[in-house]
Amino acid sequence: MATLTSRAEDYSKWYNELVLKADMAENSGVRGCMVIKPYGYAIWEKMQKQLDQMFKDTGHENAYFPLFIPKSYLSKEADHVEGFAKECAVVTHYRLKNSPDGNGVIVDPDAKLEEELIVRPTSETIIWNTYKNWVKSHRDLPILVNQWANVVRWEMRTRLFLRTAEFLWQEGHTAHATQEEAVAEAEQMLRVYAEFVENFMGVPVIKGLKSPAERFAGAEETYTIEAMMQDGKALQAGTSHFLGQNFAKAFDVKYQSKEGKQEYVWATSWGASTRLIGALIMAHSDDNGLVLPPNIAPIQVVIVPIHRTDEQLEAISAVATELINNLKGRGISVKFDSRTEYKPGWKFNEYELKGVPVRIAIGPKDLENNQVEIARRDTLEKHTHSVDGLDQHIQDLLTEIQQNIYNKAKAHRDSLITEVDTYEDFKKVLSEKGGFISAHWDGTVEVEEKIKAETKATIRCIPLDAKEEEGKCVYSGNPSKKRVLFAIAY
Amino acid sequence: MATLTSRAEDYSKWYNELVLKADMAENSGVRGCMVIKPYGYAIWEKMQKQLDQMFKDTGHENAYFPLFIPKSYLSKEADHVEGFAKECAVVTHYRLKNSPDGNGVIVDPDAKLEEELIVRPTSETIIWNTYKNWVKSHRDLPILVNQWANVVRWEMRTRLFLRTAEFLWQEGHTAHATQEEAVAEAEQMLRVYAEFVENFMGVPVIKGLKSPAERFAGAEETYTIEAMMQDGKALQAGTSHFLGQNFAKAFDVKYQSKEGKQEYVWATSWGASTRLIGALIMAHSDDNGLVLPPNIAPIQVVIVPIHRTDEQLEAISAVATELINNLKGRGISVKFDSRTEYKPGWKFNEYELKGVPVRIAIGPKDLENNQVEIARRDTLEKHTHSVDGLDQHIQDLLTEIQQNIYNKAKAHRDSLITEVDTYEDFKKVLSEKGGFISAHWDGTVEVEEKIKAETKATIRCIPLDAKEEEGKCVYSGNPSKKRVLFAIAY
Repeated sequence: MATLTSRAEDYSKWYNELVLKADMAENSGVRGCMVIKPYGYAIWEKMQKQLDQMFKDTGHENAYFPLFIPKSYLSKEADHVEGFAKECAVVTHYRLKNSPDGNGVIVDPDAKLEEELIVRPTSETIIWNTYKNWVKSHRDLPILVNQWANVVRWEMRTRLFLRTAEFLWQEGHTAHATQEEAVAEAEQMLRVYAEFVENFMGVPVIKGLKSPAERFAGAEETYTIEAMMQDGKALQAGTSHFLGQNFAKAFDVKYQSKEGKQEYVWATSWGASTRLIGALIMAHSDDNGLVLPPNIAPIQVVIVPIHRTDEQLEAISAVATELINNLKGRGISVKFDSRTEYKPGWKFNEYELKGVPVRIAIGPKDLENNQVEIARRDTLEKHTHSVDGLDQHIQDLLTEIQQNIYNKAKAHRDSLITEVDTYEDFKKVLSEKGGFISAHWDGTVEVEEKIKAETKATIRCIPLDAKEEEGKCVYSGNPSKKRVLFAIAY
Repeated sequence: MATLTSRAEDYSKWYNELVLKADMAENSGVRGCMVIKPYGYAIWEKMQKQLDQMFKDTGHENAYFPLFIPKSYLSKEADHVEGFAKECAVVTHYRLKNSPDGNGVIVDPDAKLEEELIVRPTSETIIWNTYKNWVKSHRDLPILVNQWANVVRWEMRTRLFLRTAEFLWQEGHTAHATQEEAVAEAEQMLRVYAEFVENFMGVPVIKGLKSPAERFAGAEETYTIEAMMQDGKALQAGTSHFLGQNFAKAFDVKYQSKEGKQEYVWATSWGASTRLIGALIMAHSDDNGLVLPPNIAPIQVVIVPIHRTDEQLEAISAVATELINNLKGRGISVKFDSRTEYKPGWKFNEYELKGVPVRIAIGPKDLENNQVEIARRDTLEKHTHSVDGLDQHIQDLLTEIQQNIYNKAKAHRDSLITEVDTYEDFKKVLSEKGGFISAHWDGTVEVEEKIKAETKATIRCIPLDAKEEEGKCVYSGNPSKKRVLFAIAY
């Protein structure tokens, strides 16, 4: 098995190799579109299951809206179309026909659509065109709907999971009678995302608001959770938008209030995507491969028998089978890899590469001593444990690993937040250390743009818990009341 | 609440009204594309969950492949492209730009794709282009992969759930070392579909083979399960294809056998779609609305309090809460509808329309008598039952309803299978009674086409359990060894 390029040598190369070698995903024959392989998809399924439950627990239902958006719908909200028009896949025809030269098929020019259809880059417009018919009275509100779907944004520079032309995501779209309720919804879903990313993915995040320039196209306010990768670059892990009445006005969605007045509806939307898998990989993994938090690992425990003879394998299997039943009874996913065409050492490497949190090896000597050898993926440490009480021990160990992975990522993230008060320091820290730079900003788009042009750093967020303090913008020297977080981002 | 058109009056209109009024789905602003509303989608989620488990139990994993298929891929398998070219959504451009006249956006002519992309109508070609890189040795086989996805077939005449331009489905794509193994896989998945449709959807099916003319484009053999709707029309509920080496040859997918030879890989594919929801509706529902089998109903039990005063509601709620906890403990989904803005009678109609299998009404008199009133949706019968032992009673009742719905559908289906031995009888039965017509056929495409042209009936399947018997084709008089099933189909 070829080893990975190390992170220190080339972080970007390490990431690409890891995604491929751990069988997570690969590029397809279609420019910018990826194939999510079974192991990568199993992680997405675990994410989906957890998020879906959290959405349902907060009162949401799933639905499904069309893949295609008529061009005229996309155009109805001015900022929205401005934000998405430049990266749209456009369907113009609905039929192929045999090529006159007998060579394959060509697009049938007679099957041109009257109005072009856009493959959804996000679904606000098609959904608000639908909500128009769902809402008449205040009794029809709120609408709390989520959709699991594929979307397409024609990115020119793509990267597996992090930036692909097609990606999978969920998009929540809610409609409310009042501004307060819509804002509360947007904030609630940000908390749901933060809880998921921290508790399940083990990735600490900072909750904040986007600056006006970084807002979702069509939003009044964009809430974000920002994560820090090992290389000091930030990654936006989920966003929740308060859309005001922008889409209600664009699609004329009104309700009759209790007082009998016609009012425009208030909206939110919120989304998280397969990009999260990229964040998961980059936040925790090491030069040996993936490190998966137990809460999101498709296989939490793998058992590898070490044997020469069939009799030995049989004796080991008997112990393993009981352990497997006990672990399954505790809701722990476990795999027994008794394949004989691969050696134990090969398997050890394989499961290390794939980030299985706990590996158990059982050999004839272990059986004699009524024990097993346990290796944890996060620290690569090994220890032995008696077969007695082993399932409880493994369960505790998984909890400990989950916590340890989070703690490690948090310590690293915290070490990468630097307060600076001059633009000199800003640039120095950015180039030498990276990470989040906490600095005063005067609130203008001009300064934000200049800093971005000069350093590539963007405002990742204005943290929700930023404390009020008098300060001066690092760039303009103008007064500022809060620090914001800058970083170079994925 | 407006009542439904009756089935007797206009079956087609009844179906359309029911889908809308039960809040299952509606047409969108995009030609031929539907919006699946939360209640309809909740049924799809139950179907997905069950099917997905059955796929995993038979060794399959999920993965995800691109939405887009380069035109040249689609063209590689001759029959396949012939079958799908005429109903393809084609992406030709990747960008919009502001219209020079300042009026909205137009397709940017400078952003024309070098090669057009087809929105997948099915994924054999993109998947086999991927498998090419996954398979080198016999050790890489079998590949047992499923995908949950949306697909697009540009149908000209569409109908909610039954025939839509975009629909949701799953498509399994497997690769095998031998023909025997691939055939066994195709047959296994047919059994999985049959088991699911019969045991969960309560719809009896006939397992069979498609005639060559009705095979999937690119298949060597198509297995199908055929269901019968209440109006005497058949509906194909799932298909499983043995693809031979057609796609392996088109995409040059070979493996090295244990003997060191290069061999082409054998393939299957199999799919079931949101069309199943149409079948579910049409198989069981009545003039009052949906009739859902408990195994697939999003809400299995609804409890409606009947009260005048708040004190009464409180007392009823106490009884209901205990019942709800007991039912949930048994894995039964239950809703307590204590909304005060709707009257009990309105709620009764609503849940009847939505097909909730069991409705429980609790009023002050019931409390006095320590009982509740139970109405079953399938028979519309009511009875009372003591609060004591109620959860067990409900569980048994749900089992009974599931069985009763299946039995009723099966009796109806069986009554609609008619053996005929002359073409006169064939036409008479078809026009007067409908249903499946079991008749001898000489095996030629010509006869199949003539019968279709003259009667609109197609060969739904050659039943797997058809008995060998000497007979004469009803059309040509030529010898035949088996009866096949004809019907007019959705």
